[in-house]
Amino acid sequence: MSGLISIITDFGERDGWVGTMKGVILGINPGAKLVDISHQITPGDVREACLVLQASFPFFPKGTVHLCVVDPGVGSARRAIAVETSHYKFVGPDNGLFTPIYQRGDFQAVEITNRELFYSPHPSFTFHGRDIFAPVAAHLSQGLALKEVGPRIGDLVRIELPSPGVGPREITGEVIYIDRFGNLITNIAKELFDRKVGSSPFKLRIGRAILKTLSRSYADVPRGKLLAHWGSWGYLELSVNQGSAQRFLSATKGTKLTINY
Amino acid sequence: MSGLISIITDFGERDGWVGTMKGVILGINPGAKLVDISHQITPGDVREACLVLQASFPFFPKGTVHLCVVDPGVGSARRAIAVETSHYKFVGPDNGLFTPIYQRGDFQAVEITNRELFYSPHPSFTFHGRDIFAPVAAHLSQGLALKEVGPRIGDLVRIELPSPGVGPREITGEVIYIDRFGNLITNIAKELFDRKVGSSPFKLRIGRAILKTLSRSYADVPRGKLLAHWGSWGYLELSVNQGSAQRFLSATKGTKLTINY
Amino acid sequence: MSGLISIITDFGERDGWVGTMKGVILGINPGAKLVDISHQITPGDVREACLVLQASFPFFPKGTVHLCVVDPGVGSARRAIAVETSHYKFVGPDNGLFTPIYQRGDFQAVEITNRELFYSPHPSFTFHGRDIFAPVAAHLSQGLALKEVGPRIGDLVRIELPSPGVGPREITGEVIYIDRFGNLITNIAKELFDRKVGSSPFKLRIGRAILKTLSRSYADVPRGKLLAHWGSWGYLELSVNQGSAQRFLSATKGTKLTINY
Repeated sequence: MSGLISIITDFGERDGWVGTMKGVILGINPGAKLVDISHQITPGDVREACLVLQASFPFFPKGTVHLCVVDPGVGSARRAIAVETSHYKFVGPDNGLFTPIYQRGDFQAVEITNRELFYSPHPSFTFHGRDIFAPVAAHLSQGLALKEVGPRIGDLVRIELPSPGVGPREITGEVIYIDRFGNLITNIAKELFDRKVGSSPFKLRIGRAILKTLSRSYADVPRGKLLAHWGSWGYLELSVNQGSAQRFLSATKGTKLTINY
Repeated sequence: MSGLISIITDFGERDGWVGTMKGVILGINPGAKLVDISHQITPGDVREACLVLQASFPFFPKGTVHLCVVDPGVGSARRAIAVETSHYKFVGPDNGLFTPIYQRGDFQAVEITNRELFYSPHPSFTFHGRDIFAPVAAHLSQGLALKEVGPRIGDLVRIELPSPGVGPREITGEVIYIDRFGNLITNIAKELFDRKVGSSPFKLRIGRAILKTLSRSYADVPRGKLLAHWGSWGYLELSVNQGSAQRFLSATKGTKLTINY
Repeated sequence: MSGLISIITDFGERDGWVGTMKGVILGINPGAKLVDISHQITPGDVREACLVLQASFPFFPKGTVHLCVVDPGVGSARRAIAVETSHYKFVGPDNGLFTPIYQRGDFQAVEITNRELFYSPHPSFTFHGRDIFAPVAAHLSQGLALKEVGPRIGDLVRIELPSPGVGPREITGEVIYIDRFGNLITNIAKELFDRKVGSSPFKLRIGRAILKTLSRSYADVPRGKLLAHWGSWGYLELSVNQGSAQRFLSATKGTKLTINY
């Protein structure tokens, strides 16, 4: 139990919702330590939130509660859940946000049903972040046992991230995330590349560009040039040294790439 | 005394002003706990700040100091003030920011005149957030009594939020805030609607749209459809399920709506 | 040793990198207190980061560690460094970010070479913020001596901020930063102006505008009018009362001004 709570939402920074949630949390656990991961998730984009969570949560200390409120189905029948692994707890809607956690196995999930934990017994229908998720995260950060939150559940909602296609001497992938610098993060993991391509010669095609080598870092190519490398999220990334691969390639989320070897 | 300080400004997140204020605060009260509510208030928009403050402050624990610096009159004769209620303290310019607190009654206000509390005896003329408001908030968060800050004052500046019009079997209101998701928050409070309309049939008109029912939540209507509901701020809100009512209705702040019953 | 760490990056608020760095820091020093100065530095703009750092760091309490990651050369041969003054420690790349600290003299610098301090012995090539700078800042915030980080170095990279030109009865300067409100911050320091112009009559020309006086604050001129004043960063600033000097003058970074006296 560290008292540490990380927060991911699509609430933005203007309307005061994140601050309100923090006020609720600190009213319950005055010793809580709050760390923002992102509040700029594209509104309602559960997959984007999933990717940002996946890239961030393993770097937090054991005992952290990860509070994630990207919740386009708020007020519908979608369940509110809390999930526990050996290192962390996760609190949010059952809409697939925590798919990467389920994929690692070895977790427990409960439906949040204990209304005594809510901010008020009559929560709003549109701001469960404030009325349900924040107070539950606060209680869990104080060491409340998962079983006090609600009953064990299975059949959790999962979202599928697009898988790379693997054909004869070909991997096809796509851009799944574009960061602030215009780096294009693809769905091709190092493990797949190493197993299939290994040290064979290859041609990577994306848009009109062809690359035949992987670089280690931006500075391995001249300024303004395109490179492919293993990014900090563990996936193949396309970048431009001191520039934007997004602009260089006019790429968007979903832009395809192929690797022939 | 919780040591908790919430902060609302129109300073944005780029220029380092909020961080500077926090440095000043932590130099005075190293145990202060700082929570951002919003720094994206439209520059100089006191009414917008007022609405965000009103929606957020009641969710903070007793003892919180709310530091609000939206201050288009900095350096003019406008007074710097601190306000105390049974639960909270508020620090900022006397420009109407704290009108919702005055409306609840039962508060005391002082003009900030004790220069010993300032960051330096010669504050800048353009950054009172750093030089006056932040240090005063820090001292108050340590339990300094309000009377040490300066003399009691009355005749505080108030800003008028637009009131709904009430005619024979008609309420006319307007959009007072549009949030990140494009939800349109109106100035029609639940209490007024319940008292006037109650359970009578009604027609709500906004732009070309007519609604005859209130919904509880977004999911009560099909995706892409308009709904009216009691939002988390306590006002009538227009929303589109998984969409933007702002775009759907081409609405702006000030767009009118009428309810006939 | 205050345990306080301020953070400046060009990472933005969306991709989760800053939160990830904070997770790493709190895993090493659970008592660290983290204050964001800015994460909206223009990507790769070391000079802009330098100006924001210069305006902010002196307002933090003694013992603060300032962590600055604006690092267009990450993965190249550029060194990672830690710098110590009598009041503060600074951690970041050796690309000139800390030039204002060097100019004040009386500091020590080391190259970060002690891999035992890194997040993992095999840091990524593109995210030294997470893998090198954040953990080193965390250790320093716990009181680790600078000499444990690596060997003393000299010949640090400096960046030149543009100096004002001083001719016969003329000072020429330029806009070096434009803030959220459209205030134009120039490179003309008060000390230079006082020494050269003093209380002589002068004409300040920028674009089509001519000013013959300095104001103390925005409110010294009518709403919508241009003024020149000593801004909170200590430089001559052009502003418009309750407006934007940037729009008023169609100015950009680099726009020239001349003062004849």
